[in-house]
Amino acid sequence: MKLMRVGEAGNEKPALLDADGNIRDLSGHVADIGGEAISPAGLAKIAAIDPNSLPELTSGRIGACVAGTGKFICIGLNFSDHAAETGATVPPEPVIFMKATSAIVGPNDTVRIPRGSEKTDWEVELGVVIGKTAKYVSEADALDYVAGYCVSHDVSERAFQTERAGQWTKGKSCDTFGPIGPWLVTKDEITDPQNLGMWLKVNGETMQNGSSKTMVYGVAHIVSYLSQFMSLHPGDVISTGTPPGVGMGMKPPHYLKDGDVVELGIEGLGSQKQAFVADR
Amino acid sequence: MKLMRVGEAGNEKPALLDADGNIRDLSGHVADIGGEAISPAGLAKIAAIDPNSLPELTSGRIGACVAGTGKFICIGLNFSDHAAETGATVPPEPVIFMKATSAIVGPNDTVRIPRGSEKTDWEVELGVVIGKTAKYVSEADALDYVAGYCVSHDVSERAFQTERAGQWTKGKSCDTFGPIGPWLVTKDEITDPQNLGMWLKVNGETMQNGSSKTMVYGVAHIVSYLSQFMSLHPGDVISTGTPPGVGMGMKPPHYLKDGDVVELGIEGLGSQKQAFVADR
Repeated sequence: MKLMRVGEAGNEKPALLDADGNIRDLSGHVADIGGEAISPAGLAKIAAIDPNSLPELTSGRIGACVAGTGKFICIGLNFSDHAAETGATVPPEPVIFMKATSAIVGPNDTVRIPRGSEKTDWEVELGVVIGKTAKYVSEADALDYVAGYCVSHDVSERAFQTERAGQWTKGKSCDTFGPIGPWLVTKDEITDPQNLGMWLKVNGETMQNGSSKTMVYGVAHIVSYLSQFMSLHPGDVISTGTPPGVGMGMKPPHYLKDGDVVELGIEGLGSQKQAFVADR
Repeated sequence: MKLMRVGEAGNEKPALLDADGNIRDLSGHVADIGGEAISPAGLAKIAAIDPNSLPELTSGRIGACVAGTGKFICIGLNFSDHAAETGATVPPEPVIFMKATSAIVGPNDTVRIPRGSEKTDWEVELGVVIGKTAKYVSEADALDYVAGYCVSHDVSERAFQTERAGQWTKGKSCDTFGPIGPWLVTKDEITDPQNLGMWLKVNGETMQNGSSKTMVYGVAHIVSYLSQFMSLHPGDVISTGTPPGVGMGMKPPHYLKDGDVVELGIEGLGSQKQAFVADR
């Protein structure tokens, strides 16, 4: 299934995309696409509904594909060739950092370049949405705790991230720096999360063109690994790292400016398109 | 006012501590001590209630003093003498990192030492609770966005934090590593947040005995600074750094083990007491 949230920010309705590409209103059945709806029981309940019985929604703004995210966890330097382009070596175990959940927006919302930014950069990433509380789980069992996948844009301000005193958080957590969606695609539709094409364009020019098959640490390993440190809860989102082609890796570096348009997508998970506008 | 939450985890009732030290039930007036209740309008509404008109609650478990925290932001190395004891220099601007909100627990709840931990450490910190959305605010105006203060225990696993590949998150975000409370003390009761005694004992022995007056970056500066990067929302908690005396700074280092008891407090904000128990 492709689950989504449609409507103005803060007033989205839960919905699903049917096989014909129509948006169907789920608000008569679930309160939101949040932790409860994407639990195994919640997904089974939605799967039992005949999409044709649901009212069609005329298209409108698409919100973030999951509501009530408690943790937005990111994996750094998780593609060997991306690590190389940033001058870093592949870490001996996953690098974890957090993005503020207040950065989450819809897939096509305007991204605001914060005041003082000179190095706003792009990163197409595979997002993993947790469906069941996970603590100390094995790699073999890890995918049982995953509800599905989505496109995640880990927008990053490189000067804030690396030149403004320790830790990456301040370059990753700016408002609107976390578009997720358009859909939460349930895992039954994704045969192999480690073999998905990933792409990103800036003003129509392809900048990233990779695949999740070159991830250093795969989804199952990441979920298991994270769960050794902290419980993962339904609705938590993990952004699993970006393939090569980010702006900071170019010679000379290339950063986003007011008026730029970024499009990105992942095979089977849909695409996003954002206008970048400078905060004044 | 001293606002608090009393009851079993997940079922706490909002309450206040009256001038005689009695716990008074606020559940007839507010849904929870969360973003709405601690907004300026919410606090004014609570302040207008005669505490004697509220039912008394018999004491029970005390929960985290604020519910629905969206961001749990920490400031690193924010006391010059703490920076020195860890071998670090004072950063040229605040170091920001995130603690998972899933780490938040009540002030006297058991803290679980995670599997594989060998370096679980303590840090008494002044917690700042946001009451009004703050973005691009000046230092002069910053305290207008603060609802109040609380004791925050930034429990830390030093090996996870610094020896397990990049970024501090994984040593800061373990379940139960974020006791906050017992109370959210509204800012009108705290004349000067930069002059509060702070202490911490392990098994009755004093380990930290400092004051918020030796903070490098004070509360107003921190709130203003953070708001340049991201919106702060009502219910967000900022843990502002720890004075000297942590276990990793001792010679030899001293870490917490199964069965240890930690007590900590801040002048005017109450105290916490936690048993540390190893996860098996």
